[in-house]
Amino acid sequence: MIGDLNLKQSIGSRTFAFPTPAWVVGTYDSEGKPNVMTAAWGGICCSKPPCVYVSLRKATYTHGNIVSRRAFTINIASEKYVKEVDYFGIVSGRDVEKFSISGLTPIKSSVVDAPYVDEFLLVLECKVLRIVELGLHTQFVGEIMDVKADPSVLTENGVPDITKVKPIIFAPGNRRYYRVGSCLEQAFSIGKKLQSNQL
Amino acid sequence: MIGDLNLKQSIGSRTFAFPTPAWVVGTYDSEGKPNVMTAAWGGICCSKPPCVYVSLRKATYTHGNIVSRRAFTINIASEKYVKEVDYFGIVSGRDVEKFSISGLTPIKSSVVDAPYVDEFLLVLECKVLRIVELGLHTQFVGEIMDVKADPSVLTENGVPDITKVKPIIFAPGNRRYYRVGSCLEQAFSIGKKLQSNQL
Repeated sequence: MIGDLNLKQSIGSRTFAFPTPAWVVGTYDSEGKPNVMTAAWGGICCSKPPCVYVSLRKATYTHGNIVSRRAFTINIASEKYVKEVDYFGIVSGRDVEKFSISGLTPIKSSVVDAPYVDEFLLVLECKVLRIVELGLHTQFVGEIMDVKADPSVLTENGVPDITKVKPIIFAPGNRRYYRVGSCLEQAFSIGKKLQSNQL
Repeated sequence: MIGDLNLKQSIGSRTFAFPTPAWVVGTYDSEGKPNVMTAAWGGICCSKPPCVYVSLRKATYTHGNIVSRRAFTINIASEKYVKEVDYFGIVSGRDVEKFSISGLTPIKSSVVDAPYVDEFLLVLECKVLRIVELGLHTQFVGEIMDVKADPSVLTENGVPDITKVKPIIFAPGNRRYYRVGSCLEQAFSIGKKLQSNQL
């Protein structure tokens, strides 16, 4: 162990990680007005029970909505809605009706107390399981009560196909949105080639 | 509000969300042996302090390592290491020395008690800030103490460029790895076009 031969550079204590999502969080406010906001600090965090989280600043309108309604949806937009996704991250539901202005359609979830975006092809409906205060952001862990998908994005095995959903990737750093590219390999498969080295 | 016109299909309470990462988690075991494992349940979860998490099953070797060492690294592999990344998710450090078999090089972090992968171009060095038990998975929230990057992946502004890092995306469902594709738009910018609708 003679130190980093590749001479990496320290770039500080910052949130640089790839990929991060650009997910649209759907909630109702105290008067039942549907709202959406975009969040990049989100991910799957447990398989059983199936859980997903989003981390939000207390200042956001969505933060208060989730605290009071104990529910939210994760709406995965396709590339063609990148303008709407970005807009949902720029303005606050405190000031504007984002659904009306974007022309998108809120649908009341049948399983949780939150709306989802009709036009988006993959939606996770979540009940709050845990609220973790971390600092500037609060992490809302939601149990995924159901996933709704447009039939057009499902494979013959009934699972969503990322190349049909065409989700948006957010890149911290240069703060740009990217497409998902081509398939590299099948997981839990290509790595087996290295197992022969174990012998 | 007349119900979902697009007739989405219920596909159950499952962890279907895009994108998820394929991150390599670096740790030391109780005897100081460096280990790596691949995790797709991970993400940024706070901006101040800067935090990232990975969720791991208790059965994994890495789970015990993080509990005892209170530190880990997140290593973001480039596409060309997809075979190694997959391998690190197939076998356990309890049984094999994954660094030796893959031929990759562990470097001791100077800021946390964990090793990182020399050959990977972007590395986050983390101290455990919070351990959240969710069910099958334990969520390890780490404070990002420093980020190390190969100078070749930095933009002129000193931030990592996703198109140079070429991270791997994991897709739950069909369980395949994907590339990052082309740039769609600049964030916090394209959405402003919709603001004129507010008037």
